[in-house]
This record gives sequence, C-alpha cells and structure tokens, in this order.
Amino acid sequence: MNLRSPGPTPCPDDVLQAMGHQMIHHRSPAFAEIIRRVTDGLKQLFETQHDVFCLSASGTGAMEAMTVNTLSPGDRVLVVSIGVFGDRFATVAKTYGADVTKIDFEWGTAADPEAVAQALQQDASYKAVCVTHNETSTGVTNDIEAIAAAVRRVRPDILLLVDAISSLGSLRCRVDAWDLDVVATGSQKGWMVPPGLAMVSVSPRGWQAYERSTMPRFYFDLGKARDFLAKGQTPWTPAISIFFALDVALKTLVAEGIDGIVARHQRIADACRRGVKSLGLELLADERSASNTVTAVKVPDGVDWPKLYRLLQDEYDTLIEGGQGPLAGKIFRIGHLGWVSEQDITATIDTLRAALPRLGYKLPEAAAAS
Amino acid sequence: MNLRSPGPTPCPDDVLQAMGHQMIHHRSPAFAEIIRRVTDGLKQLFETQHDVFCLSASGTGAMEAMTVNTLSPGDRVLVVSIGVFGDRFATVAKTYGADVTKIDFEWGTAADPEAVAQALQQDASYKAVCVTHNETSTGVTNDIEAIAAAVRRVRPDILLLVDAISSLGSLRCRVDAWDLDVVATGSQKGWMVPPGLAMVSVSPRGWQAYERSTMPRFYFDLGKARDFLAKGQTPWTPAISIFFALDVALKTLVAEGIDGIVARHQRIADACRRGVKSLGLELLADERSASNTVTAVKVPDGVDWPKLYRLLQDEYDTLIEGGQGPLAGKIFRIGHLGWVSEQDITATIDTLRAALPRLGYKLPEAAAAS
Repeated sequence: MNLRSPGPTPCPDDVLQAMGHQMIHHRSPAFAEIIRRVTDGLKQLFETQHDVFCLSASGTGAMEAMTVNTLSPGDRVLVVSIGVFGDRFATVAKTYGADVTKIDFEWGTAADPEAVAQALQQDASYKAVCVTHNETSTGVTNDIEAIAAAVRRVRPDILLLVDAISSLGSLRCRVDAWDLDVVATGSQKGWMVPPGLAMVSVSPRGWQAYERSTMPRFYFDLGKARDFLAKGQTPWTPAISIFFALDVALKTLVAEGIDGIVARHQRIADACRRGVKSLGLELLADERSASNTVTAVKVPDGVDWPKLYRLLQDEYDTLIEGGQGPLAGKIFRIGHLGWVSEQDITATIDTLRAALPRLGYKLPEAAAAS
Repeated sequence: MNLRSPGPTPCPDDVLQAMGHQMIHHRSPAFAEIIRRVTDGLKQLFETQHDVFCLSASGTGAMEAMTVNTLSPGDRVLVVSIGVFGDRFATVAKTYGADVTKIDFEWGTAADPEAVAQALQQDASYKAVCVTHNETSTGVTNDIEAIAAAVRRVRPDILLLVDAISSLGSLRCRVDAWDLDVVATGSQKGWMVPPGLAMVSVSPRGWQAYERSTMPRFYFDLGKARDFLAKGQTPWTPAISIFFALDVALKTLVAEGIDGIVARHQRIADACRRGVKSLGLELLADERSASNTVTAVKVPDGVDWPKLYRLLQDEYDTLIEGGQGPLAGKIFRIGHLGWVSEQDITATIDTLRAALPRLGYKLPEAAAAS
C-alpha cells in the first residue's frame, strides 16, 4: 500500500524490524538505556534543553496532557484556530473547564500574528495561548516563530502551548529559541514510527504553570513522568515496542540533522505542489503558508471524493485522505512527511493522473499527454 | 532474556511478526476489518455481549477511563483494596473528585465479600464499587464472582467497576454472568501482546452511568469510542501495530478457548508454587487465593533483593520483579501469564536454585541435591 496519509506514515525496514523485538521490562536497566537515548535524541530535534517526555498515547492525548498539566478551571485561554486541530485544542481546554476564546482564521489560511497580539492586548486576563503549528486538516503551517514573537511582545510571561504534532521532526520548530512552553508531537508523523507515543516538552515556565494548575490529571500527569524519567522509567507501563522503533528512527534522524530534515521536507513538498498543479488541480492553501508535510487539494468539480478514495485503494494500492469537518468531500490531502521520497510523490501524481479521468475529470492537455 | 514479569510478558513469534507489519491507515476499510475482528475476539474472552473498546494506553489509562466515564465529582465510591493497584484505583477516583472510602484487606490476602456487603449496608449513598480482580502487587486473586454476588445482594443496581487488567485473558472473568459493569484489561498481560492497548467493556448500566457522569474526559471518552467503533474506527489515531498483534494473538486464544486458557494458567501456576516451595521459600499469599498469573515469594532472610535482581539479569538472563510500595525488598514476583510454559517455569526455579545460594541462602537439603 502506498500510504500517502499525513499520519500514520510508512516506516523504514529497520524501524519495522525494531517493532518486532521481543519484550523487555520497562523498569529494567535495559529499558532505562533506551529511554535515555530516545529522550536525548528528541531534545536535539525539538532544539530544546528542557524536559521531553514520551507518553503512551496519540497526539490527542498529548493535547490533553498539555492542557491539564498547566491550566486550571476558569483560566482564560486564547486558542488560535485555523482548522480541525485548532478547534480540537479549544474543545479539550473547554472540556476541562478553561474559559476559552477562540480566534479563528479562514480554513486554508495561516493565523495572523498581529491579530493574535491584538487579542492579547484587548484582554489582559489571558493565562495561556494555544496554537497549532502545522494544521493537518488544511495543509497550512502557521509561522509559529512570528506568532510566538508577537505573543511575547505583548505578554512576555504568558504560557504558550503549541500543538506541533505534525510539524516536529519534519519542519523547523525551535522550541527554546522561540520560547515555546509546552510542545507536543506524535510518533506516527515525520518520526517514521508507528502511532502509540506522543512526545511533549516542558519549559521552566511550563513547570511553574504545572505547580499552579488544578485541572485533574492522573494518566497524563507530567510531574509523575518527570519523577520516573529521573529513574529511566515511565510512571505506567509504556508502549515498549514504539520506544524500540523510535530509538532506531532517531538514529537516522539525528544523523541527518534538523537542517537536512527540514530541507528534505521542503524539497518533497515542492515536488508535490508542482505535481498537483500540473494536473490542473487547485491547492487549498496559499503557497506562502502551504505545509511541507501535507498538501490539501480541492476535489475538482464533478468528481465524487468517496469514489476516488476507494478507486485509489482498490485499483492503485494508494491511500490519500479526504477532508475533515466542513472540508469533507471538498478536499483531499496528500501526506509527504517522514519516510517518503520524491519518487513516491511522483508515483502518487501519476496515480492521480490515471485515476481522475476515470471519474470524469478532464486533465489539462499537457498533463494528459505526459 | 527470560522475562518472568507479570507484564509485559513475552510474545510468540507470530505476534512479534505482526508488530513489524507496515502501517495502514486507521480510517481505512482494512483497519475497520481488523478492529471488528479484534472486538469480536475480545468479547468472546470477556464472555460479554456488551461493548468492548480498545484504548491506546496502558492499564492505568483504562482505570482512568473506567472512572471518568461513569462517575461525577462528589460521588460516594467504595474502593476495595488488597494492594498497590486497589490503592491506585482509589487515587484515580479521588483525583477526579470522587468521595472515596477505601476498604483495605491485609496485603497478601483476598477481600472478604461479606465485609464489602457490610460496608454497602452501612452506607446507602455509595454510587459505585471499584475492585481489583487480580492484584499483581501481591499475587492474590479476589473471588470476584463472590464479591459481585455480595454487592448485588445489597445493592442490585450499584455500578461495579472491575480492574481485571492482569486477569482477563488468563483467569476466568465472566463479565456478563457476574454482572460486572465496566471491566478493563491490558494487552501486555495474558493476551501475549506488547503493551500499548487497554481493553474496556461497558454494560448497559455502565452506559446509564456514562450519561449521568460529569467528570471531565476527552482522550478517554468512551462515548466517542462507541461512536467511532460503529464506523470501524477509533476517535484518535490508535496504536495500529498493537492491533495487528492482538489480532494474531486472539486467533490463538479464541481457538484455545476460555476453558483451555484458564486450565493452562492453573497448571503453570501450580508448577510455580510447587517449585518455589521446593526451594524452601515462602509464598506471600494463602494458596486458596494465590494468583494463577503471578506468584509473590518472600525474599528469604539475609538475601539482598537488589543484588538478586541484578544477578538474575546479569548472569542468568532472567528477569523477575520485586515488590512494590511497602513490599519493596520484601517479596519478589514470578510472572506466569500469557506465553509461558511449564518448562519456562522449571527453568526459572532452576535459576533461583543456582542463584540464591550465591547470595547466602541455604537451600533445603532435598533442593540442594536435586
């Protein structure tokens, strides 16, 4: 299966092999070595000196962890949303009793850092800003550096929680240099590892918030994670196999280095956008903010998305994802993060070139001839 | 490594092979087939017609799920504790605001069903009873059938939450016949699968409690799990590889059948207890309530547990676990659930026979000669 989803992503052979290792005990010296090595590798790619923890959960679990470890019921929280995952951040915070104001930007566009700064200027009572780095549902990357700078200009000490689930490990996200407090990602994204672990960093400001925070937490308690990591352990039985896999994947990623990783994703994303446009298809996002991990493409008029989805799987062994929420049926999304090459993307474009006309789409002449 | 821990447990080759399968998408028809098959298999071994869900988390995550989906802050809850995991159930419930009364039984003994019934008789305000089926920390199995019957005699409609994390898939636990409302287990126990999934059943009474419950929940929301399972999905990206593995393991377990599984664990546990006693060592638990998944053994006088723990790993490639909490250093625990044979247990006993005298333990004459 050519899995061109924005997560889970395909895994290299050595990572899959590691998944098949026999169990070891999670409170043994052998596991302590692995968790220390994994944590060190993650810190390099998070570009942080702060704490990083691996939680046995999905990215959504990490969003909950970010929220319940730093906020209290009634806290005023500004959530910056540009799609499904920004909205989800707001829902999680509301679920646990935060007093949430959502600042929305049109789906397919990026957040305006100045608008965020203005919102903070208008109301000094905000305790935290929650923002998505890379919005997987629309294929848009927020300029988190500019947003963080705008936020800090107005409120130097406000808590900044960043959903970097589909960006970290693929896109540049300088956790310390940009002064991001709690930042989360998921193993099934650019890390080239199966789903099952979420990785979260916590700044000293994040820990101060933790001490004040009164939202209830147990499974996702980051203070417990900190206490146990000091012993080379996790508080609860972790997804050991995913640690094996992440350990192997990080060896590759750390060797490549963050600059190499970022350049690779840029190159492959450029190839994807060029390919999509060559088929006469329209991108959802403005190219200035288009994501380098996932490309959202408008479903052309007259083409039925559910039919295309099934046709691609049944006859072309290729999976791409549809839109979510209000974009369901209106866009499809090609994932190109992690273990995916330019040839893989060329093959996906070739597949679309072959499949779309079967559902009534008329290719531009140049594409039909190629 | 001879992993003789009460979880994680070793995995058969075909299960490990399944762990190494390439990723598929969790909202694809291919995953829907797997989750339907896994859910069907689990229902057979839970002996339930009710709903069963797989959460991407450890057993502790499932304890949180049981709590936050059925209770409200202020609810009076009776927690029956016979060890670390009973205490943890109480802590989870308190963390989310329940008004918890704990009824404790001496560690190493089982709960007295009549004492539980009496506690319910004395206070009609309890909304729920939380109880551990198999207490991994002490190697004791509660007679959950008798406890459930005693509870129902006094309070036919009270909510009964059961931590069956280390029992289901190994010991008899008739969820429907015993009228248990919400029951949880973990993949890394008798299921012979790596850690990463927790499996939870919910009765109609459990769903009524869900509708009334006001504890906050998002990641562990079982109502969302129900809505998505109807589509062959999970609400959030699941630990897909563990589903692959559980699918394979369940084929073996369902073919063996629950009677076969229970008899196998009984036979191997008997062998373990006989072996331990043949070395002159003392069991922590009374044999009438000794667990068939884990045997707790008193560390003999004069033997230093941390030294024994390291010696067994470094020179005998064998891992057994120590005691937890107040039992740390006082007991060790031999796991014998899941993929473990009588020969494996014989080998463990032989290892102890060789290792213990090196740390000053004097074997009984018969054992020294054998």
